[in-house]
Amino acid sequence: MRILITAGGTSEAIDQVRSITNHSSGQLGVALAKAALAQRTTQIDYLIAKGAVMPPQDPRIRLHPIENTAQLGATMAELLDSNTYDAVIHAMAVSDFTPAISSSQENFLAGLNRWLTAHPDTAIDRPAFNDILADIATYTVAETKLSSKTEHLVLVLKQTEKIIGMIKRKQPQTLLIGFKLLVAVSESELLQVAHENLIKNHADYVLANDLTAIAEGRHHGYLIDSTKIVGEADTKADIAQLILDTVAKKVRQA
Amino acid sequence: MRILITAGGTSEAIDQVRSITNHSSGQLGVALAKAALAQRTTQIDYLIAKGAVMPPQDPRIRLHPIENTAQLGATMAELLDSNTYDAVIHAMAVSDFTPAISSSQENFLAGLNRWLTAHPDTAIDRPAFNDILADIATYTVAETKLSSKTEHLVLVLKQTEKIIGMIKRKQPQTLLIGFKLLVAVSESELLQVAHENLIKNHADYVLANDLTAIAEGRHHGYLIDSTKIVGEADTKADIAQLILDTVAKKVRQA
Repeated sequence: MRILITAGGTSEAIDQVRSITNHSSGQLGVALAKAALAQRTTQIDYLIAKGAVMPPQDPRIRLHPIENTAQLGATMAELLDSNTYDAVIHAMAVSDFTPAISSSQENFLAGLNRWLTAHPDTAIDRPAFNDILADIATYTVAETKLSSKTEHLVLVLKQTEKIIGMIKRKQPQTLLIGFKLLVAVSESELLQVAHENLIKNHADYVLANDLTAIAEGRHHGYLIDSTKIVGEADTKADIAQLILDTVAKKVRQA
Repeated sequence: MRILITAGGTSEAIDQVRSITNHSSGQLGVALAKAALAQRTTQIDYLIAKGAVMPPQDPRIRLHPIENTAQLGATMAELLDSNTYDAVIHAMAVSDFTPAISSSQENFLAGLNRWLTAHPDTAIDRPAFNDILADIATYTVAETKLSSKTEHLVLVLKQTEKIIGMIKRKQPQTLLIGFKLLVAVSESELLQVAHENLIKNHADYVLANDLTAIAEGRHHGYLIDSTKIVGEADTKADIAQLILDTVAKKVRQA
């Protein structure tokens, strides 16, 4: 069995000294790698985000370090183009947004007011806001040194490419296991959102978990497919085992 | 000699799964701790940011872990109120801003347009922007789940308390060593900004460094006081030695 695992959380640079980071220790990825090695996996391509804990050293694990979503996308595309995977287990916490503009309040308001002067009595709609942002962007480069004195810093983030969408496009036959983390929702909402996520991303399984059910030594999750709850687990090791057992069984059937 | 060292970089939470992080490995703090122990330091209170490398285990080092600027401020105040330090070496990369509002583009524009409707033909000035932000804030709590679908996320950050300012206010007699990191500036600009920083924070010394002169195994820095360059160093170990030699000499003179 050859599989691809992603682990840890991406970081999107705001500037050269700061970034926006998605929290993820990478421990679930390590548990997945261990469970995969125990399942007679011949090779694991392991995409690891900066700061994540390392998987065990093993000749069957090949590490691919990445930092941000763009690097994740490039590395993922390269791996999917050159190898065929029985399964892709996408446990990485990937940022939905990346910084587009970082502006002082003064520069941001100047841009807004330039637009308002040119368009009196007009509400700012989506296309207008895009024009305003493009205008502001032309002024932000010069003001990096002023920004620490401004009352507010305005950070505008744009959507990142949805990396998970590429997986089934490039390898329709691979088993795709996605992850959905929500915060403090009901069990029914968690399962519903995870199901929507599975359909949208053409995943075969989604591991649904809630941050409030994750603590030292405890990590509750449901593994769902398109029709039902496949299993439930209470620790990272159990989640990893549940996923790898499910994958191995499916691969043997194929 | 009893000293306080801060090391690593702070993280400001955007929400429960993401934060804005100031990059700093904490390696300079470790070098400072080692140099301090070699200078017959009797105790080090070591304020360490999450993710920073740990200093050597030593009974003379007491660790105080923190994550964000608010925690840094609280811990620093407590330590300065209960102990007297010969020197405070503030090497931590502290965030100047912390998230105030995280809003979808839709919610942000709705807030802007509500204000524009109520104030036709008026430019948005600083007080107006504060009113708009307060209005938007009342709508942001409800929309946490929608935000991943918006085209842009607008993050408004407010200034954090300047923690370094508290040090000489609470302990005027302590030696304060600040750090100023700039990116790709001339030597004269670096020294000038570091000098302004020293005056503003009532620091006795500032270590001025430029990110472009920091790489694996290399870290160039100038140590300045209010009138001159005290010394120059090319590695983290040399910077730490320069600072601790300077501190120890000054403490002996006192």
